[in-house]
Amino acid sequence: MEYLKYVSDRLGLEEDPELGLPVHRKTTLPVTLWHNHENNKLILLDQNRLPFEVAIQEIGDWKKGVHAIKNMVVRGSQAIGVAGAYTLLVGASQAKHDSDPIGQLSGIAREIAYARPTAAPLAWATMLAYNYFRRVYSETESFEKSIDALREISDFILAQDMVLNYCMRTYGLRIVRNGDVIMTHCNGGSLSSTLMGHALGIIEEAYSNGVNVKVVSKETRPRSQGYRLTVWELTRVGVPTTIVTDNMVSISFEKLGVNKAILGADRVARDGSVANKVGSADIARLLKYFKASFYYATSYSTISLDVKKGRDVEIEERSTDEVTYPYSLIAKDMKNRGLVSEKALEEWPPSISIVTHEPERKQVRIFNPAFDVTPPQFITAIVTDIGILRPMSVRKLTGRKILSMVKRRITDFGLEFPKGLVSLV
Amino acid sequence: MEYLKYVSDRLGLEEDPELGLPVHRKTTLPVTLWHNHENNKLILLDQNRLPFEVAIQEIGDWKKGVHAIKNMVVRGSQAIGVAGAYTLLVGASQAKHDSDPIGQLSGIAREIAYARPTAAPLAWATMLAYNYFRRVYSETESFEKSIDALREISDFILAQDMVLNYCMRTYGLRIVRNGDVIMTHCNGGSLSSTLMGHALGIIEEAYSNGVNVKVVSKETRPRSQGYRLTVWELTRVGVPTTIVTDNMVSISFEKLGVNKAILGADRVARDGSVANKVGSADIARLLKYFKASFYYATSYSTISLDVKKGRDVEIEERSTDEVTYPYSLIAKDMKNRGLVSEKALEEWPPSISIVTHEPERKQVRIFNPAFDVTPPQFITAIVTDIGILRPMSVRKLTGRKILSMVKRRITDFGLEFPKGLVSLV
Repeated sequence: MEYLKYVSDRLGLEEDPELGLPVHRKTTLPVTLWHNHENNKLILLDQNRLPFEVAIQEIGDWKKGVHAIKNMVVRGSQAIGVAGAYTLLVGASQAKHDSDPIGQLSGIAREIAYARPTAAPLAWATMLAYNYFRRVYSETESFEKSIDALREISDFILAQDMVLNYCMRTYGLRIVRNGDVIMTHCNGGSLSSTLMGHALGIIEEAYSNGVNVKVVSKETRPRSQGYRLTVWELTRVGVPTTIVTDNMVSISFEKLGVNKAILGADRVARDGSVANKVGSADIARLLKYFKASFYYATSYSTISLDVKKGRDVEIEERSTDEVTYPYSLIAKDMKNRGLVSEKALEEWPPSISIVTHEPERKQVRIFNPAFDVTPPQFITAIVTDIGILRPMSVRKLTGRKILSMVKRRITDFGLEFPKGLVSLV
Repeated sequence: MEYLKYVSDRLGLEEDPELGLPVHRKTTLPVTLWHNHENNKLILLDQNRLPFEVAIQEIGDWKKGVHAIKNMVVRGSQAIGVAGAYTLLVGASQAKHDSDPIGQLSGIAREIAYARPTAAPLAWATMLAYNYFRRVYSETESFEKSIDALREISDFILAQDMVLNYCMRTYGLRIVRNGDVIMTHCNGGSLSSTLMGHALGIIEEAYSNGVNVKVVSKETRPRSQGYRLTVWELTRVGVPTTIVTDNMVSISFEKLGVNKAILGADRVARDGSVANKVGSADIARLLKYFKASFYYATSYSTISLDVKKGRDVEIEERSTDEVTYPYSLIAKDMKNRGLVSEKALEEWPPSISIVTHEPERKQVRIFNPAFDVTPPQFITAIVTDIGILRPMSVRKLTGRKILSMVKRRITDFGLEFPKGLVSLV
């Protein structure tokens, strides 16, 4: 089945020759990655250059693909997974046909799969693609046929993610009303998925269907995904957007008329707690005071039934450079403009005083956790690609139930499973 | 009375010849402004260069004093008031002795008093000093004696503010316990007062008296007073300090052991509501969930009995440049490092799409309110220089009561009122 053509037609994608990626006709949003079948290149929307420049990277060398994944040219766990499968496809065409293709591909697959250790779909998609290749090769002993099969499974992985995002948006339409002013945080949107996923995907779908909505986007320090990515994405679609800094939640209710919040999510625990970008739990708690609804929107793959409670989620602490970066630029700028003398500090706080543990006298700790956990009682519902879940109903799910729901949605949309692929896990 | 010598001795100040300002012996914090009696110069700690450089400005020309006030070299309403009185003193020595000194000073006083229209103590202190000058001149017809009187009243205004801050710290010690981990926001501290005022003054007094406290300072976007000023001030004293971005309130409770918050305040309404730097109300609401105490610490002069309810406080919206500034630096930095092309945007969002009103399609509003209002039910108590107030007891105060409490504290400390000064208003 020509997966990419089929989903392009059904979802309304068209080529944007200037950009070099297909865009969604109604919203003009580009897919975040694609594959050029003619020259076997992986095409990535270069998210590191956003919002200052809209440009692509064409990947014709699997090592460059690994580098792009590590370097976050592509981001969001599903998109990274798809990028992993296509990077393997690029690697397969670089492999020598005559000497142990399985051995070569196996080494490449391993390097891709562990390019980012915490993104589960990366290893999942890469190994699914690799195993599919291996099976076809052992059956046919034809390198060409195996590469075709690898391309087919990679296309399928991309297509099914776009279809599942479409399902999520369709369910999500139920929680959006005319006149809504919706707060969001970080970037749980098209840019964190393959196309129009998660929280912003729902808003974008609603807006492009004529629903009158406005968005209030929180800056999301320290990496400012809200300011840089969410604002880029929403204004491209046309959604009227207001930027606030992260300490403006209460006043956004009082002065901007915010009446609900929709955010993406990194992980859903069995007890209905949700781990997401730090600050999400602050918003959820504050919304309770204003009697507003608080939603997460996320893929089924973030539901972690083996994580029993929210407090079991390990919180990654990231580099302090993320926090200090703008202040080093400000110091330089002040020097350039003659506002401070040549002797002035070039960094603040001075790195000799920064610690990452409990601070002592005259020390500064910079605490930079990536996530926080929202307890279930502050979450109205979790919109997923398998339906809208109340937090308390997550515990009733099983892995088998989830997979059959996913499979049904994919086949209902008309996607055929690649021959011989019996399971998604 | 030699006011400056008297308070220096009583409060434990000593000269720091390298800096050129007196510093508090125990904490090493400098006063934010002083007057050099020998050459009649106003000395300001240059807060625009902090935290990158600790330096002073010496003001020997009243027009430069007005410029420094406008330009926020000195900040915090009390300190600005003192700076206004001393700028008038500088202006008096520039005036020509022979032609209508009252007329000359009156013009200068007016220019100083309205250098910043919203800082009430600026006009109050400047006009108090001017009227004192005028009275002495009309009694003595001696320009020299009138200048001496102007110096005396200016010194008194500085001394009484330092004494009132000392009273606030003394009351505030009652709310600080060994082992406290205290969250704060913006800079309600020594740098927003003449010396060790407000929220941080209480913490600094406790710490320098041997109480084991730690502070979690919120960054306070967009102007980052928490990151830049509070961290500078606290680390100078030695207080172990942790920096968090503004979306880390909940997680600071869970992971850093925060157990209370103390913030400065801009305005206290009759109903016990408090207006302060935007984000304060978010913290107050969140602390309620964690059953932690939330305090404001502020001068009596911020109590506005004529403002009946918190919602009557007008919220100033400030320039969008404050929000966009770091992103223009980031764009430039990315260009310099070759991470984006020469064609890339130099600003984000593009200024053509930024609006300050309700946004339309493809528009971005940057909402930059300076303050928010905390309802009284979220405030444990307000520590002031006239005692610790429960929010609900603010309505029982009258202007007359407040002034007699202020006067008693000043005279109890041993400050004599300048001859003929009968009222502070």
